[in-house]
Order: sequence, then structure tokens, then C-alpha cells
Amino acid sequence: MPASTASSAGRPRTDLNATVFAATLRAVHDLGYAGATMDRIAEAAGVAKTTLYRRWPSKGALVVDCLLDALGPVPVSGVRREEIMATAIRWIAAKIGEPGVGAAFAGVFSDAVSDPALRTILAGRFQEPYRHALQGALDEPDDRVLLFIDVVTGTLLHRMGMTGEPMQGSDVDALTEMVLRTFA
Amino acid sequence: MPASTASSAGRPRTDLNATVFAATLRAVHDLGYAGATMDRIAEAAGVAKTTLYRRWPSKGALVVDCLLDALGPVPVSGVRREEIMATAIRWIAAKIGEPGVGAAFAGVFSDAVSDPALRTILAGRFQEPYRHALQGALDEPDDRVLLFIDVVTGTLLHRMGMTGEPMQGSDVDALTEMVLRTFA
Repeated sequence: MPASTASSAGRPRTDLNATVFAATLRAVHDLGYAGATMDRIAEAAGVAKTTLYRRWPSKGALVVDCLLDALGPVPVSGVRREEIMATAIRWIAAKIGEPGVGAAFAGVFSDAVSDPALRTILAGRFQEPYRHALQGALDEPDDRVLLFIDVVTGTLLHRMGMTGEPMQGSDVDALTEMVLRTFA
Repeated sequence: MPASTASSAGRPRTDLNATVFAATLRAVHDLGYAGATMDRIAEAAGVAKTTLYRRWPSKGALVVDCLLDALGPVPVSGVRREEIMATAIRWIAAKIGEPGVGAAFAGVFSDAVSDPALRTILAGRFQEPYRHALQGALDEPDDRVLLFIDVVTGTLLHRMGMTGEPMQGSDVDALTEMVLRTFA
């Protein structure tokens, strides 16, 4: 986390981040990922576009930081492995259902398929802390934790893209059951 | 499938489709989904942009038809349910690894999160034939077949977005094993 230093606009940096992140989710929610350009986000946040580019090299990089902020750390409390995994799955399913979050998530992934620089940010800055936390809690080999993340997040995002609605209720239960049967 | 009728350019329509689909995958592969605009696709195909819009209302609709053409029908031959599912999973994993296909797939999904019209095309025109074929072969209730599709396709696309490479080898085996344990 960056320290709260004054930005060039005279606002503390953490305040600026909060304003920009809220504007980003709102713009993505209203206009879609592709429609939420850096121009529109700057306008929605009431800052200059140069202010955004001073902090983030690209829209993808901004969206990654915005998602890190919206998600926060994965909850890995719980004693049994089943409990830890089920809590993590329900947590990310709920987060993906928050306005703008699912669309931002799906958009940045799709961007990354053909943008190696963004992929580095996504895999390193975004996925890595979650992989690390889950690995510490679950004590699984690397490839199993990555598969766990692919299955859970991929399934939730695919449902969101296909139906426009987050996966809920019995489908999240079925996904959880399937994952636990393999991983727990 | 549309009948092969002459297009306004004097070419049979099926030839035109083949040319446009190849140009679409090439453009998406080279420029990414967002960069592959209708202008760029028209240019790559050597046709007028109006020719594209006469046949497809949007880039998303064009990409859906392009993917249907690239994928073809899901193979559901096999006697045992395990065999049918494993064949289908290996088939889609290989298809997503073909140049442009994974990026087109991920891009159109992400577009659809905030585009209800595209979502209707995606869920109806794209997903429905596969759901129908799988349901006929597997004799599972609707929600189970849709979850099967979400899990398999979502996992493969998430891996593609995160690493830029299609999921392969032992990871596809682990995904198959996990899905079979629940569904077979």
C-alpha cells in the first residue's frame, strides 16, 4: 500500500485513490469495461487525465488496483480446509456481484489475453497475494492453488458474462461442493 | 447455416464468411479483442465496413458467428458419460488454444457483461446449441449442464487471461478429473 502523501492536486493520495476507484467502478458499471475510457474515468472522478496517468500506466493497471481495493484480502480464517475454501468461494462470489466489480474483473482479464504487460501486472500484482494467502492457509502445491483460483474465479466470471447476473444460491453451493470434493 | 447466396460483392456468401472469419481471428490475435475494430477487420478481410454491418449488427455478433465456425459442433460421441465429458473438455481446451480463438472468446464474454443485446446472442445463438447437444448426450438437468459449461469454459479462459497461454497437459487432466468426479 502506498503511504498517504500529498498528490500534485493537493489532496492526500489515499483520498485521491478512493475517489478514482469509486469513479472507475461507476464508469465500468454504467459504460462497460470498453466504454470506461481513461477520459471518462477522469471526468467521473473530477481529476485531470494526466493525474491518472501519473499514477497508473494504463487503464488495465488502474482497474487492477481498483479491484485490489474493492476485494481486499481473501478471508482465510477457519480451522478446517473445507471451511477455509468454502468461505473464500462465497466471499469472491459475493464480491463479483457488487456493481462494477464483475464487469471490471472480466474486462481486465480479457484485455490481458492480448496484452503481455497487463498480464504481468494481473498475475503478479493481482493474483499473487491471493495465491500466497491461500497457499499458506491450505498448504497445497503451487499448481493446485492456481487451478483452484482458475476454477472458482473462471466459473463465476463465465456465468456473469453469459447471464449478466452473478452466480448465486444453489449454483454457488454446487460449485463449492465440486471444488471441495477435489481439493478438501 | 445460411444458404450460399451471392453477396452484394458478387461473392458467394459462404466464401465471404470464410474470408471475414479468418480476418477476424487474425485481427484479434494480432491486435487483441479491443484493438480488432470493425474497421480493422474489414481492412484485413478486404471488404467494405458496410458489408460487415449488413450481415452482423455489431463486432460481438460477428465474433460469435466466427467462434461458432471455428469451434464447430461439440463432439459427443462415446458410450460412457465419463468418455463423452472428457472428450468434450479436451476438445474445447484445444480449440481455445488456437490462434485468436481464446482471445476472441474471452473478449466477447467480457463485452457481454455490460451489453444485454450481445448477451442474448451469446446465450442463445452461441451457448444454446452446445447446451442442447451436451444435455442430449448426458441426460442431466438444465442447471447442471450450464454449470458444467461455466466450470470448463470459465476455467480455461481464466487461465488464458492470466498466463496468455492455453491450459494444457496435466492441468487439463486435473480439471477433467475434478469435473468427472462431480458430473460423471
